[in-house]
Amino acid sequence: MIRPVTQGRHMATASTTDPHLSHEDGALSAQQIGVARMSHTARLLLQAENLPDPTFDLLSLMCLPVTALWCRVLRFDPTAPDWPDRDRFVVPSTTMLPLLGAMLTLTGNTAHTHTPLEYGRHPAIEVAPGPAGQGVAAAVGMALAEQQSSLRFGRSLVNHRTWVLAQDTDLATGVAMEAAQLAGRFGLDRLAMLVAPPSATQGSEFADSLARFSASGWTVRKVEADNLPAITSALAATLRARKPTLIACLPSASPTSSLGVHLLPEEELTGPWSATARRGASSRRSWLRRFARHRQRAAFEREHLRQRPALFEEDWHRAWQWHMRSTHDTSTQEAGLAGLHALSDILPELVCLTAASAYTAPSAMQEHTGKRTQPATANKLDCNIQEHGMAGLLNGLALHGGLLPCCAASMMTVDRMRSALRMAALMRQKMLYLLTGDGLAMGDGGGGWQPVEQLASLRATPHLAVFRPATPDETFKCWEAALEWQGGPAVLVLCPTQGSTHTVPHAYYGSAARGGYVVSQPEKRQVTLIASGPEVAIALEASHHLAERSIQAAVVSIPCWELFADQPSSYRQKVLGTAGLRVGIEAASGFGWERWLGPEGVFVGMDDFGTSAPANALYERFGITAEAICEKVEHHLFASGAIRGLTPPAPHQPRAHARGP
Amino acid sequence: MIRPVTQGRHMATASTTDPHLSHEDGALSAQQIGVARMSHTARLLLQAENLPDPTFDLLSLMCLPVTALWCRVLRFDPTAPDWPDRDRFVVPSTTMLPLLGAMLTLTGNTAHTHTPLEYGRHPAIEVAPGPAGQGVAAAVGMALAEQQSSLRFGRSLVNHRTWVLAQDTDLATGVAMEAAQLAGRFGLDRLAMLVAPPSATQGSEFADSLARFSASGWTVRKVEADNLPAITSALAATLRARKPTLIACLPSASPTSSLGVHLLPEEELTGPWSATARRGASSRRSWLRRFARHRQRAAFEREHLRQRPALFEEDWHRAWQWHMRSTHDTSTQEAGLAGLHALSDILPELVCLTAASAYTAPSAMQEHTGKRTQPATANKLDCNIQEHGMAGLLNGLALHGGLLPCCAASMMTVDRMRSALRMAALMRQKMLYLLTGDGLAMGDGGGGWQPVEQLASLRATPHLAVFRPATPDETFKCWEAALEWQGGPAVLVLCPTQGSTHTVPHAYYGSAARGGYVVSQPEKRQVTLIASGPEVAIALEASHHLAERSIQAAVVSIPCWELFADQPSSYRQKVLGTAGLRVGIEAASGFGWERWLGPEGVFVGMDDFGTSAPANALYERFGITAEAICEKVEHHLFASGAIRGLTPPAPHQPRAHARGP
Repeated sequence: MIRPVTQGRHMATASTTDPHLSHEDGALSAQQIGVARMSHTARLLLQAENLPDPTFDLLSLMCLPVTALWCRVLRFDPTAPDWPDRDRFVVPSTTMLPLLGAMLTLTGNTAHTHTPLEYGRHPAIEVAPGPAGQGVAAAVGMALAEQQSSLRFGRSLVNHRTWVLAQDTDLATGVAMEAAQLAGRFGLDRLAMLVAPPSATQGSEFADSLARFSASGWTVRKVEADNLPAITSALAATLRARKPTLIACLPSASPTSSLGVHLLPEEELTGPWSATARRGASSRRSWLRRFARHRQRAAFEREHLRQRPALFEEDWHRAWQWHMRSTHDTSTQEAGLAGLHALSDILPELVCLTAASAYTAPSAMQEHTGKRTQPATANKLDCNIQEHGMAGLLNGLALHGGLLPCCAASMMTVDRMRSALRMAALMRQKMLYLLTGDGLAMGDGGGGWQPVEQLASLRATPHLAVFRPATPDETFKCWEAALEWQGGPAVLVLCPTQGSTHTVPHAYYGSAARGGYVVSQPEKRQVTLIASGPEVAIALEASHHLAERSIQAAVVSIPCWELFADQPSSYRQKVLGTAGLRVGIEAASGFGWERWLGPEGVFVGMDDFGTSAPANALYERFGITAEAICEKVEHHLFASGAIRGLTPPAPHQPRAHARGP
Repeated sequence: MIRPVTQGRHMATASTTDPHLSHEDGALSAQQIGVARMSHTARLLLQAENLPDPTFDLLSLMCLPVTALWCRVLRFDPTAPDWPDRDRFVVPSTTMLPLLGAMLTLTGNTAHTHTPLEYGRHPAIEVAPGPAGQGVAAAVGMALAEQQSSLRFGRSLVNHRTWVLAQDTDLATGVAMEAAQLAGRFGLDRLAMLVAPPSATQGSEFADSLARFSASGWTVRKVEADNLPAITSALAATLRARKPTLIACLPSASPTSSLGVHLLPEEELTGPWSATARRGASSRRSWLRRFARHRQRAAFEREHLRQRPALFEEDWHRAWQWHMRSTHDTSTQEAGLAGLHALSDILPELVCLTAASAYTAPSAMQEHTGKRTQPATANKLDCNIQEHGMAGLLNGLALHGGLLPCCAASMMTVDRMRSALRMAALMRQKMLYLLTGDGLAMGDGGGGWQPVEQLASLRATPHLAVFRPATPDETFKCWEAALEWQGGPAVLVLCPTQGSTHTVPHAYYGSAARGGYVVSQPEKRQVTLIASGPEVAIALEASHHLAERSIQAAVVSIPCWELFADQPSSYRQKVLGTAGLRVGIEAASGFGWERWLGPEGVFVGMDDFGTSAPANALYERFGITAEAICEKVEHHLFASGAIRGLTPPAPHQPRAHARGP
């Protein structure tokens, strides 16, 4: 157990006799007696829950600080737990949930008494429990959302705080430390975290965690968890703080399990007559009055209902064209970022977090970085190297409501962001990830930096839409589809590769908005080349080569598997073709491609990590060139007997790889 | 830029006149003049490399500290850069590599002059450059490896240090902070990190990073990068330190780009006559003498050549049986952990890092945790909640050589470890991941904790073998295959689900060591049920149900896709069957299963995240039960016309999901 705090000699001496009655003129105020009584009742409620002993001890210790917060500070109306200007009370782990349950019972949340305390079911649960630290990062995101919203709507509409009830394990994880750095950097002074002490003998580690938070720009306060005056003054100091605050609740040196206030609270202290409920109801009423005559009321409502502004379509087209006009770059990365800039011009609720990796990834883009790294909008926030923390914040931005969170980072960093991205998919929160630097474009310094299995692992995640557009035009359509996607996060994978000399024609059949479509189709389809991203241009070139050898190949672009899988079977059949050889082309792992290729299909891609080499050399090394594809197709057609009379061409196969049964 | 340090008033005053000649009796020693000359030459070498300006400025600043380290401290023999007892000099990013190149040139690494500075090609490159922070974590792992090896072989054989040349961005990431905590916890006093200052105006962030390292149990020293006496004394203090050390090299208040020693070093200072080369060669010669008559020589050699001890097979079988005898648990998780304990009894080079999540994941295992959490071997190291740092350390343990690194964590935390795991696969390092708590076994508190897409994303990673055994016996075979796997890391996915009442018989055809095999086969195969893990028992039960309805179903267990894909096509055909319906059964995402099922195949698994519910309820919710599978099979056979005369059974489909074209 951690060494208890002793705030000066006088305090320590007082503690040994009676800490609660000796402080401040020797007596608790009437309000404090109310809090102590409520806390006692909360403890009784917890006792009835048959919790395991260590959990009960922990929650019992945290009862008084949490009750003090709820009774004296928290802005929460039990009759409207999802009121937009409520204080967020974030409980990141299931361990602490019974305490929230007790608070809800005591403050009279009667409408949801029988609803289990689960995310998506009970409105007072702000976040789904996830891996340690994710809840802390989400809370930082909520505080950031409050900050950004209040900049737009002013303190008359947005004036709440974010409170977290965390455990020591939440603080020690990398994502929490990254999020803590971001909270310090953004100056989120309306964020406060109550932390329960470690249950095991890890006191020094806990003290280290506190020191790390202190070094990240947080105010760290230590209070004895049963010293009500100390707790009250810590909470009061938090309201005045200019930095995010961490209140470590430590076990007392002289534990006084009895508070001297054993009486149950009278009727007027609990339920709808509790201090919390009365204060919450009154705050909400005055908020509603202010809201009714607020000049930005319509915008606030629209954003919280996640509706688009009037004339969105036209503005979006115009802004897109404006931003695309100024660029001579034909990569999807440039187009994707232009889309982001266009969107930030017309959607004020867009908040974009950017990692340092977002623009520096492609070596070909170096000359453009000067232009792009300038924050184009006030809502663009720099997260430097803290990608995991950034992704955690993004969840909080979405959970807060009223904002459309978006982030830009490099494709390779998605490995670090995965835990957070998965939480977003699990909670089905709408947000946009722009992942730049995909493809074999890292150049000489690449090393292990070529994404290989990232696409497959993103596509395997439920509720996640992954877009990998082929051309600037397709990027625009993918942007639109990503904005339409309601099931969860949408990911746009963008390549810095410049478009080839073969311009990709307009869709022959279908459209990018349906996930996959036919780019070009010969009269009689013998071969279907299915590709995504910059490989569509290669497929198109290969189809021209094949045409010269009298092999008729259709080219299909499949920017989004999730959307394509949702299309009717007849559409999919028509796009992919019912007969003939199917060839999948993508500069990534072929894992999962059998879905579209069938057992006889051929995949041209990467079966190994990339190496340091210029992009063209890598494309050649992995055989992702028009010539190599032609040879492979000819070989397979010859082997299957579909073409005759030619000498069997030697296939260009960098390495043999068994696929399919 | 960060505010330069001024170590006391005297020092600050001295700096403004001439920092290098005023210190210590007003003159540099002959050795120090040698270092300064060498550093000047290194700078000239860098100048010839046409580096971008910011990079050159940074490297130029770091020249003197790095030269001082190489000339005065580093134990490195240029004629044998892979000598086991060398000091590790870890350069985690490509930015810093030219400086290493200059050092190698100056100290006479002639054999590899034309080898590019890439991991796997140049022997002096200890780690492949990867995401920020991974190199720091790997260096911590190397220091841990040194600590563990020296415990076994003593300081006469293992007596080296680990040095890191890091940048400010490396320190700010979550993985570096987790690794830093672990370094502090394990007391790795032979680890030191030279950190270059930030190039941009992020001085306060850098100071925060230093404070965080200090709070994680590190000694943090700040030196002026051009103050040679200060650097020398910081390096000397590092050699005496009881804690890991971070030396922040800051730009000087009064930058003196000229060192007053503009002469190039004479012949005797560079090449094989350099201080580094002479000291390294002499250290190595005396090490070789000690090694030649060391009583543990054979063991040391065996472990560094990654050979198995004599009688390994017999010992391994005996130890396994011993550990399995004491358990009444029939889950693969218990068997997998028994395998770990057996292996740690007989393989002294095994070092196992365990995360707190490893044993606490399965609720059914609660009663066993008391037994298992006791560290069974001295080599078991607790990494608490820092899974990402742990995975980073594991890479360092493997890269150090002479050890077999292994870790235990829960399946869900693999998302956090992915960056590190990918680096291991990229560098093709052999290590073992035991991932517990797979399957739908999390019970009521589960929430978003059911692994869904994790299996697919692991399988999509090149050079990574994923094993998901079905029974304790199969777990043993998978353990053996994982130990055999040479291409990279091996992952054992273990489920806490108790074996069903239907005991799984021995292989009918093939074996688990080949990745997939036939568990049971009827006379005439109409249906093939392909499953892995605990779902094999369900498939077996379903095959009995089907047999009652005169449908003959074979059951195939496919514990390792990577091994199975490497088998000859004829074997795969024989196992999977050439005709009839194929049904894949796995409590995970079906992404990638088309590879084995073909376009007509059926997959029974999860197409959504799990929820909080007991495992059985979840199996029923997703339709992964023998009854549901039977109904699905009957429906499909009826639809395809393979069976007639029955009323078409309504398939039990929790939700429609489009699969395949």
